[in-house]
Amino acid sequence: MNAAKLYSYYRSTSAWRVRIVLEYKGIHYIYAPVNLAPEVTEQDSEGYGSVNPFRQVPTLEWHDGERLVRLAQSVAIAEYLEERHPTPALLPEGALARARVRRAVEIVNSGIQPHQNSRTVATLRGLTGEPQIAEWCRGAIARGLGALEVGAREHGGRFSVGDALSLADVFLVPQLYNARRFGVDPAPFPKLFEIEARAAVHPAFVRAHPDHQPDAPKNGPLP
Amino acid sequence: MNAAKLYSYYRSTSAWRVRIVLEYKGIHYIYAPVNLAPEVTEQDSEGYGSVNPFRQVPTLEWHDGERLVRLAQSVAIAEYLEERHPTPALLPEGALARARVRRAVEIVNSGIQPHQNSRTVATLRGLTGEPQIAEWCRGAIARGLGALEVGAREHGGRFSVGDALSLADVFLVPQLYNARRFGVDPAPFPKLFEIEARAAVHPAFVRAHPDHQPDAPKNGPLP
Repeated sequence: MNAAKLYSYYRSTSAWRVRIVLEYKGIHYIYAPVNLAPEVTEQDSEGYGSVNPFRQVPTLEWHDGERLVRLAQSVAIAEYLEERHPTPALLPEGALARARVRRAVEIVNSGIQPHQNSRTVATLRGLTGEPQIAEWCRGAIARGLGALEVGAREHGGRFSVGDALSLADVFLVPQLYNARRFGVDPAPFPKLFEIEARAAVHPAFVRAHPDHQPDAPKNGPLP
Repeated sequence: MNAAKLYSYYRSTSAWRVRIVLEYKGIHYIYAPVNLAPEVTEQDSEGYGSVNPFRQVPTLEWHDGERLVRLAQSVAIAEYLEERHPTPALLPEGALARARVRRAVEIVNSGIQPHQNSRTVATLRGLTGEPQIAEWCRGAIARGLGALEVGAREHGGRFSVGDALSLADVFLVPQLYNARRFGVDPAPFPKLFEIEARAAVHPAFVRAHPDHQPDAPKNGPLP
């Protein structure tokens, strides 16, 4: 992957997932910050619209010979990187185990994250008050984590699916960070937080963490 | 796939996607209706909670030897069926083309559908009025379709990615049905509606259509 560039925001959980995959597979990339902060919304600038018409991060960009290629959406990027850089693997052997991983990925990606991302929160601000928004976000996160906890108890071992790290864990860890940020009670999800503790110390997860990104606030994370 | 059973609701776009894949690949299945109508919400019954702890449709169930296997989440199911029943294919040759398909799938699956599914609409009813809800749903659908239209013009041919039917079209067609249902202006998306017209006449798409499901209202679709 020639001169890969990742359009990212330090605290975007979707960009964070792709950072973990890139780090885990040892793919070198340039970090291109896009400031999603509500008072900036750089994703809505004209420039970024030509990079990604859906105006989200992440977008991965690279040169394929003469051609500049851009790819958006975190699952699509993760699956692409897994196909082109299969080792170290983030999908297990066996179609059913892979399906279990993809189920967990999808619960985070479509079942939780869209309900608490920055655009949804901004839209809710036009309709209701902060306590209702907090409850909305916490409700969506807790409901999704409940399904993930059941899955991890049934099919997990040291990690979400079996004993090897997979995309299920890559998607889980950033979502648990947001669970804390939104004040979700962790008590019903002991298995998920146990898996998080195990994954979070991996060097790829450490390097991909929001606090270690060039656009992270110098004086620690914002509330 | 031995005695496959699909938990479905005729008008759920997520279940509809899986019905198309099953029909396209000629996999026989039993239809198990789960009534998601707001006045019934059978997905929240105790019985369905043991089938799918996330309480969504679809769930695909089958016997693998002695073992009963259940798999939820439409992308995970579609990818599993593609791996186990690769022909006729719904993913193209070439990693980049597959990534383009998965991008389109993900825009529908996580960028649009979660913002207008029955649970989100029900939650919004507790916060705001019907005109605001309609605007919320239309806004989410139009925004996502805008990104899909750009992608289809850039990478599509007869279908969303190139000239062959793919999962991108399988996910697009049910979403366009919902676009109509929510009163989204179709004018900005000519390429998408052209692709829909081409896909919708395929026998698999006809058989998977809501109107042709056993739980569809006998006197035509509800509003």
